Amino acid sequence: MLEKVRQIGERAKQASLRLMAVATDKKNMFLHRLAEKIERDVQEIIKVNSIDLERARASGMSRALLDRLELNPKRIQDMATGLRQIAWLPDPVGEVVEGTRRPNGLLVTRVRVPLGVIAIIYEARPNVTIDSIGLGIKSGNVLILRGSSSTLNSNCFLVEEARAVLRECGLPEDAVQILDSGTHEEVQALLQLREFVDVVIPRGGEELIRAVVENARVPVIETGIGNCHVYVDAGADLTMAEKIVVNAKTQRPSVCNACETLLVHETIASQFLPQVGKALTEKGVEIRGCEKTRRFLPQALEATEDDWYREYLDLIIAVRVVRDVDEAIAHINKYGSRHSEAIVTEDYSVARKFLEGVDAAAVYVNASTRFTDGGEFGMGAEIGISTQKLHARGPMGLRELTTSKFVVYGSGQIRE
Amino acid sequence: MLEKVRQIGERAKQASLRLMAVATDKKNMFLHRLAEKIERDVQEIIKVNSIDLERARASGMSRALLDRLELNPKRIQDMATGLRQIAWLPDPVGEVVEGTRRPNGLLVTRVRVPLGVIAIIYEARPNVTIDSIGLGIKSGNVLILRGSSSTLNSNCFLVEEARAVLRECGLPEDAVQILDSGTHEEVQALLQLREFVDVVIPRGGEELIRAVVENARVPVIETGIGNCHVYVDAGADLTMAEKIVVNAKTQRPSVCNACETLLVHETIASQFLPQVGKALTEKGVEIRGCEKTRRFLPQALEATEDDWYREYLDLIIAVRVVRDVDEAIAHINKYGSRHSEAIVTEDYSVARKFLEGVDAAAVYVNASTRFTDGGEFGMGAEIGISTQKLHARGPMGLRELTTSKFVVYGSGQIRE
Repeated sequence: MLEKVRQIGERAKQASLRLMAVATDKKNMFLHRLAEKIERDVQEIIKVNSIDLERARASGMSRALLDRLELNPKRIQDMATGLRQIAWLPDPVGEVVEGTRRPNGLLVTRVRVPLGVIAIIYEARPNVTIDSIGLGIKSGNVLILRGSSSTLNSNCFLVEEARAVLRECGLPEDAVQILDSGTHEEVQALLQLREFVDVVIPRGGEELIRAVVENARVPVIETGIGNCHVYVDAGADLTMAEKIVVNAKTQRPSVCNACETLLVHETIASQFLPQVGKALTEKGVEIRGCEKTRRFLPQALEATEDDWYREYLDLIIAVRVVRDVDEAIAHINKYGSRHSEAIVTEDYSVARKFLEGVDAAAVYVNASTRFTDGGEFGMGAEIGISTQKLHARGPMGLRELTTSKFVVYGSGQIRE
Repeated sequence: MLEKVRQIGERAKQASLRLMAVATDKKNMFLHRLAEKIERDVQEIIKVNSIDLERARASGMSRALLDRLELNPKRIQDMATGLRQIAWLPDPVGEVVEGTRRPNGLLVTRVRVPLGVIAIIYEARPNVTIDSIGLGIKSGNVLILRGSSSTLNSNCFLVEEARAVLRECGLPEDAVQILDSGTHEEVQALLQLREFVDVVIPRGGEELIRAVVENARVPVIETGIGNCHVYVDAGADLTMAEKIVVNAKTQRPSVCNACETLLVHETIASQFLPQVGKALTEKGVEIRGCEKTRRFLPQALEATEDDWYREYLDLIIAVRVVRDVDEAIAHINKYGSRHSEAIVTEDYSVARKFLEGVDAAAVYVNASTRFTDGGEFGMGAEIGISTQKLHARGPMGLRELTTSKFVVYGSGQIRE
């Protein structure tokens, strides 16, 4: 297995050396033609996808997961539209980020270049295959994909479509490869390929990410876990606070930037908790509160220490009454996952304290945590949301799939 | 051991939350006062260092290593000067890197913030202790240091000096901690501390770096290995080429940006090889050549496949004759370590091809590879040279010890 995966890695590296200098027009041509091809082949894609669906159904997969697995004409159209949107985005490769002329006359410039070979390990949804191909190729990177075994047929078919279009455009077909044995060993082998793989990005649940981090010898960009908080300060506009809390919790509870814990300043607890409790309950949210919370919200269950750590991804919210913004910051820095954190307040100094004191990828004043997203931040498309500090933090777009290279122009300089 | 190191990690994290928002003036005050303190305590430092030196001598350490270990008044003065230079550099923390107002009125800004807790694992030279403290604190980071056991007394003393000055300045003393058991277990424990350590930077030889990469569960920034090439093209000014090759090889052969392999275009081999061979031999350089090279340089030894991979760090150079710039690029991309690569040529198109085609942290035209250095690139000081692509590539200064945070200003926005 190691040898087979090694060969895939070696072919990827070769393709990468060719792809890294390809002109933007050619990459955009690939994106447009791939969009056309999957639109043209919609019936075939659905047919192949139905094989995956049938097997998954037979294996007793839940309705929710089956839904994620399914491709229909609308979803295939969305994938094509996504590719065209990526074609419209500016090419990050070749951007001269900065440059100076040194006293000895050396012109030192820093230029954006592709990362090289990116491995993506992901779960369920086959549209991630096309998204990753679009973002990867546009940023000049070569991809080794590894989806879940339940979508193997769909993913392999989509990868074959991409490889056909790469050939058609005169680009190296090995710029997109997929691991298709469906075994755990191939993932293990991939994670050791330091010689050929520049970075691995896991996209999926907590367990997948942990497994990748623990086993990888290649650099990893972690994505995804979000235990996000909204802190409603004494100085908050309570109508605004209610809207933000309800939005952050209920607009799409299954995603990483949804709110999991509400923190409320003690001086407004008696007024705000009944108000927000009613609104949340109407939306079907289960409330788990600290002792003080439950004085004002008798319907709330008792929150345990464990609740403060939880990413529910569901219509459940933990609620805690805090003494002040310092206690709120301390709570978030202790229990949070450093993803997205919001304060609601009209108090300037308190807002500033919160924004500086909370250690997270995104901090908000007077807005819902749900905005942490490449599209919402104006980056176009995103390949995921990094919750680590190295390389990229927060939503990652095309630029985050690049690195830089010092390009130095001399006239015979030597070092004395 | 794990528990002891865990406590160190926990204290570091706490200190980090305090240090990340400290004003620039206060950090600069620390740097100046630490410089004064080590100048004042020069005799004591030398006394403690002599204990390390004596033990090392008794254990049979080589003269070269003993020299690296030794602190004398000149070296201590240099450490103090280094701290003052870091104080003069601009503070990277708080820089607003970019920002936009989104259509919904959200003001999305990206702000530079410290990485948090940085672990540095290093070998021999005790001045790395002070360098790391200076760069770390200036960039708002907290440090966990782990030097080699041969310099334990010197390192611990210098760390105590720093902690005393931190207290004096009203800064958390746990912003600088050192692992002092000298055991392998403490390093192992440190590399697992994902909860508290944001990044580990190994500074040392190939073996140290490999051990860290293989065992770390925390993110790593790799530094240092440099198998660098100079390619002398058919279009080169041969006088310039000779100077660059001799400088890149001999000006300081023991460092990572020194040249290890010379590639020569076949059409100029008969003229250039005898010329550069003579100059290198005069500097005491041993030449290991390919078959074609040895036709023009009979004194050269035979280069084996292994030689193309070697980082000699010594007065040895491998020499290969290549057909053209494409073969030179292919050789470098195959055997190189992606550190620093140079072409010497007056041919514009060939230069451009080389700069784009070679995958390395720094690529040069008509200059010595020896310039890959934070100081030479105008970054002030450097903590090392990254040879990986994630986060930072090439020399790393203060800015590379930071990450960013999205700070988002709203007025009640919720996501529809």
